[in-house]
Amino acid sequence: MAEYTCSTEQIAQAVRMYDGVRRKSEIGAMVRDLRIDSQEVIASFGEDAAVIRNHNDALLLAADGIWSKLMDADPYWAGYCSVLVNVHDIAAMGGKPLAMVDIFSISDITIRDLVIQGMHDASRQFGVPIVGGHLHPDTPYSVIDVAILGIAPIDGVIYSNTAQVGDTILVAIDLHGRVHPSCVLNWDSATLRSAEEVRSQIAVMQEIGTKKLVTAAKDISNPGLLGTLGMLLEVSGKGAKVDLEKIPKPDLLANNISFDHWIRMYPGMGFILTLKSEKIDLVKELFEKTGMTVAPIGTVDNSNELTIHYQNSSSRVFDFSKDGGVMHLGSYT
Amino acid sequence: MAEYTCSTEQIAQAVRMYDGVRRKSEIGAMVRDLRIDSQEVIASFGEDAAVIRNHNDALLLAADGIWSKLMDADPYWAGYCSVLVNVHDIAAMGGKPLAMVDIFSISDITIRDLVIQGMHDASRQFGVPIVGGHLHPDTPYSVIDVAILGIAPIDGVIYSNTAQVGDTILVAIDLHGRVHPSCVLNWDSATLRSAEEVRSQIAVMQEIGTKKLVTAAKDISNPGLLGTLGMLLEVSGKGAKVDLEKIPKPDLLANNISFDHWIRMYPGMGFILTLKSEKIDLVKELFEKTGMTVAPIGTVDNSNELTIHYQNSSSRVFDFSKDGGVMHLGSYT
Repeated sequence: MAEYTCSTEQIAQAVRMYDGVRRKSEIGAMVRDLRIDSQEVIASFGEDAAVIRNHNDALLLAADGIWSKLMDADPYWAGYCSVLVNVHDIAAMGGKPLAMVDIFSISDITIRDLVIQGMHDASRQFGVPIVGGHLHPDTPYSVIDVAILGIAPIDGVIYSNTAQVGDTILVAIDLHGRVHPSCVLNWDSATLRSAEEVRSQIAVMQEIGTKKLVTAAKDISNPGLLGTLGMLLEVSGKGAKVDLEKIPKPDLLANNISFDHWIRMYPGMGFILTLKSEKIDLVKELFEKTGMTVAPIGTVDNSNELTIHYQNSSSRVFDFSKDGGVMHLGSYT
Repeated sequence: MAEYTCSTEQIAQAVRMYDGVRRKSEIGAMVRDLRIDSQEVIASFGEDAAVIRNHNDALLLAADGIWSKLMDADPYWAGYCSVLVNVHDIAAMGGKPLAMVDIFSISDITIRDLVIQGMHDASRQFGVPIVGGHLHPDTPYSVIDVAILGIAPIDGVIYSNTAQVGDTILVAIDLHGRVHPSCVLNWDSATLRSAEEVRSQIAVMQEIGTKKLVTAAKDISNPGLLGTLGMLLEVSGKGAKVDLEKIPKPDLLANNISFDHWIRMYPGMGFILTLKSEKIDLVKELFEKTGMTVAPIGTVDNSNELTIHYQNSSSRVFDFSKDGGVMHLGSYT
């Protein structure tokens, strides 16, 4: 198969050296400096969204920004993604996204209007209103950042640091998509879907949370599929073996991308989940109803390493036992 | 009195032309483009924080950023203020601040560490944890933006668009402060107060909300005292007459500032409130217990204009009936 001409070592290195992974390493020290204790905060740094207790509800709060290189390449798509990535953060926790605020630094009016159009379209498609924010109208740069509020039942929250040894690792991803014309590292499925379809995909995670079908999950974000799995394993204090052949993928030749490119892409809708094997069928069914593809790709172990396998070769991608690990992480994305 | 050498017209013009006021005017069109309907969103643009209904709770969501000129002048103070302004946004609505997320674009490590120190100190002083966020580590600029989640009883929320004709306009402000050494437009009271003191000042607004003591309120922010009052009047569809002599002020000579400078300053703790006259004494007492100074400065009317008076002269600051008004506004700050 043409798409497997890379060796496992080449793939491991491609993941490790990927900008989306490497830039996470700055975050560790910052996080330590900012932490203060609060009784109401159940989880914060290390999760896709922070969890704040309010009676029987978990209030979920997250923030995400858009790389300036994406803003330069395609302001409309940057605006769209600024909403998408935040909706993903809430979905990953099993939450319902309620509302967003944005912070917009902009001087160029043409860029501004395109970004707003993208935000508006995504906001309407996902049904999550933008309710306020802050505008810096006179900056020498263009940045769009969005923060989001979501909600979940307190006992229905899905965390990322709770993967257990022996769990199956499941990937759920929407393969019905395209390499985005403005950004080769974005696998765009969302704009090809109706509002009803994307909302049903997001809602699956809420059902999974409420029914306690998984032990841990994360949305696949900038670090890509294996990078995201690495983050989940690291905060869980676990390791895993992954079989590259089992990773769901679109027609790579038709889309003119290599396998190592695919696993570094940010998908329009994609989650990594860990779960007990008896729950696989039900979770698979829920996602497949919404048009997503689901596959078990490996098993959680106590190795503190993420190792990839392909036929007779294998390579270590991350060694989490090493000082500083690979990435820090999570709600600080 | 030396501090009143300005004419009312000079003061009116100083407020109108102030950058903190003028830069609000960009916001109107953006807001219209972003709005989508949602049943759970009770209030959004036009308020200091958006109000999202969750059973009997109002979830309050706001975002605020720091001017790049402040970041250039004093990164520590910029970090401190990024927390302060967000806490003000929740307090203005009668809410309890619960948690914040930050979005940080930074390349210079020295600046980063100073900003984080400032955020950390303010977060600890006000008792509001930073629970996550997003880091852009490789940007050619330095920006700090913060979003905040707060909560209030649904019937204890204080709005800014509900001022009524005949209401007294009250200013509550902490005069125990100093012109901040790095920024002449910041009246810094918060860093001179203990954690207990600033938290009690914030808590007064919660008590006012729960006891329904005011008809409307806003925190005094970048547009200064009269600019903030203008925003409140505009969204309320009202006007007002204000007596400049009644505006509380520190010793202007000792602080080496003019009166028109004072009324454009961002105070460490300051609110504009409108209320029925029979509530004045109780509200005054609540604020004064926390060391703040309270004074009635004028009356809400149906003129659609903000007019300032001093002795025998008077001038119009804003005419809200004119197309586009003066400022838009509010949660889009």
